[in-house]
Amino acid sequence: MSSQASSSVGRTAEQFRTKLASYLDTFLQQYRDRAEQMSEQAVDLVDEISRLCSGGKRVRGLLAWYGWRAAGGSATDHRIVEAAAALELFQAAALIHDDIVDRSATRRGGLSVHKSFESLHSIKGWTQDGSHFGVAAAILAGDLALSASEECFSAVADATPYAATATSAFQMMRFEVMTGQYLDLVSEVDVSAISAEAMLQRARTVLRHKSAHYTTVWPFEIGAILAGADENTLKKLRRFSTPLGIAFQLQDDILGVFGDPELTGKPAGDDLREGKRTELVAHALLSLDAAGRETLTSALGSEHLNDVSVAEIQDLLKDSGALQRVTTEVSQLGSEALTNLNNLSLDDRTRSEIIDLTQRLLHRKS
Amino acid sequence: MSSQASSSVGRTAEQFRTKLASYLDTFLQQYRDRAEQMSEQAVDLVDEISRLCSGGKRVRGLLAWYGWRAAGGSATDHRIVEAAAALELFQAAALIHDDIVDRSATRRGGLSVHKSFESLHSIKGWTQDGSHFGVAAAILAGDLALSASEECFSAVADATPYAATATSAFQMMRFEVMTGQYLDLVSEVDVSAISAEAMLQRARTVLRHKSAHYTTVWPFEIGAILAGADENTLKKLRRFSTPLGIAFQLQDDILGVFGDPELTGKPAGDDLREGKRTELVAHALLSLDAAGRETLTSALGSEHLNDVSVAEIQDLLKDSGALQRVTTEVSQLGSEALTNLNNLSLDDRTRSEIIDLTQRLLHRKS
Repeated sequence: MSSQASSSVGRTAEQFRTKLASYLDTFLQQYRDRAEQMSEQAVDLVDEISRLCSGGKRVRGLLAWYGWRAAGGSATDHRIVEAAAALELFQAAALIHDDIVDRSATRRGGLSVHKSFESLHSIKGWTQDGSHFGVAAAILAGDLALSASEECFSAVADATPYAATATSAFQMMRFEVMTGQYLDLVSEVDVSAISAEAMLQRARTVLRHKSAHYTTVWPFEIGAILAGADENTLKKLRRFSTPLGIAFQLQDDILGVFGDPELTGKPAGDDLREGKRTELVAHALLSLDAAGRETLTSALGSEHLNDVSVAEIQDLLKDSGALQRVTTEVSQLGSEALTNLNNLSLDDRTRSEIIDLTQRLLHRKS
Repeated sequence: MSSQASSSVGRTAEQFRTKLASYLDTFLQQYRDRAEQMSEQAVDLVDEISRLCSGGKRVRGLLAWYGWRAAGGSATDHRIVEAAAALELFQAAALIHDDIVDRSATRRGGLSVHKSFESLHSIKGWTQDGSHFGVAAAILAGDLALSASEECFSAVADATPYAATATSAFQMMRFEVMTGQYLDLVSEVDVSAISAEAMLQRARTVLRHKSAHYTTVWPFEIGAILAGADENTLKKLRRFSTPLGIAFQLQDDILGVFGDPELTGKPAGDDLREGKRTELVAHALLSLDAAGRETLTSALGSEHLNDVSVAEIQDLLKDSGALQRVTTEVSQLGSEALTNLNNLSLDDRTRSEIIDLTQRLLHRKS
């Protein structure tokens, strides 16, 4: 689509994004003031969260807004802005800790938070192990972001008649993300005697809980609950958001191996180096011969994988039919989501914006 | 005091502890069931939290109970048990992440959580770096415990007429602990050009926020708020709990250098190895000559400090008068707390239990 069409249908979304950014600033400024009352040095902890929150696509905040709109929430009500901010703060917390877990040096076009603290340690000429300081400080920054997200969310939930249901959804999202991340971690290290079928099954569990639910289902659900959606509306929303979330993550898995480093901001084949057992990998293992399986398996989790090896694995994933299979799945799930979108009562502009966003999520290159 | 006297005055406290342990079990069993629905492997994350929560002195839970009692809360009301469980879950979260930060291998007589996950990795014969897996899994376990504490607390706060005030106190406690821990971290690495006076000032800031407020002031305050305490009662409570908390932490600082490893479960001079700039250390630096300062400064943060060097530093801290000074401070603050306890309206049994607990906190060896 042309950028003009995109900017036209996305106008209310852009207005929402602006309000969201402004509210995040206001909220974190309060946190900064609170920190400053304790000590000048404490503000660095808040500033790192602010830095991270100033970037990103704000997908979750935006989806919460559409969930709210789909359930009849007013476009000018500020409460959904605040709820979206809580989701973005939660995402910041997840990313800060995730980057430690995945040893990622970069995030959203800048340093990841633990690397940024390591850099602060170096700039200040502090003593002891700067790398450990970076990780330790980032653990605390993630904890603080997690607390901030809850503080922000509970305040807005309490300002609606749906506090109990909304809070429960928020808590369930949090639980799923954390346990899902743990399962992801285990899937990277527990590779001994597992069959490709079992790996596929496990990849699906991780994908559903860690990613699909979290990226699309919960934000829609939470936005809709806050606007007073009944169970029938929520069911219809889930029939849209669930296939969309799964497709989004499968696309992410493809980008993790085939993504252009220039666009993703991550090294080529990053998921391979981390040893991620995705559905893409599981499908390949189911189709490959013993030699191919061996090549793929030994590449997974190998930190020093060079570009030639990455290219070899990319070929294996293509030749095995796994790439085609997952690409087809993304496309089918995307269609399913868009078909089910028809069951929701939406004004024309909101509908076309959601369609636009869906297309962009499914065809993204980064 | 004799153990008989102790068990006599501590009877209701013991009953409370039993109820608290039982409720923590129930709460975490629900978390476990939820995890199990996702995947059998996810329960390990919850089980580690349960393992940690099964130990400990439960000081914070108990102080919340006394705060509740001091504000007239009923001894048979289950809500304070649940609030105390939330404080214990928060403490579990703080300890899990703190042990990563401090690289502590043991906690509450067992492995620290990251070391326990490292051990699980080894037992299962999993691949990749077990030490990194341990840290990564423990970051997630801490996040989950933090979420659990909030979930537990918000449920019980909402079941009182004081939800907003109690929730705000809980959030402020959390904020103070996290930023206080960050300041503690910075104080260990930022040692270049700082004067002993500035170090003393900073040690006091860390102590107040990270430790004193957290260990005694907030638990009392939260318990009292939940029972409907007015601002006047809260002020009186703080005049007791603040000196008690500072004394508790100063005693902790003494134990961190002079504690018997057999009793503390930590190596002798552990705080020196971690490079903690406590008030004890700051006082010594203010009194020592250049040679003494140099010896003390180079010992701080030195990982390979042997027992002979620890003994040498202990002598320095004694000879400089710093140990005596901090010991006197502990004693004076303890007296101040007990004097101010007289201003609180308490039944005789509760008063004698609080006096008993105060004495045990100030004269503890571990």
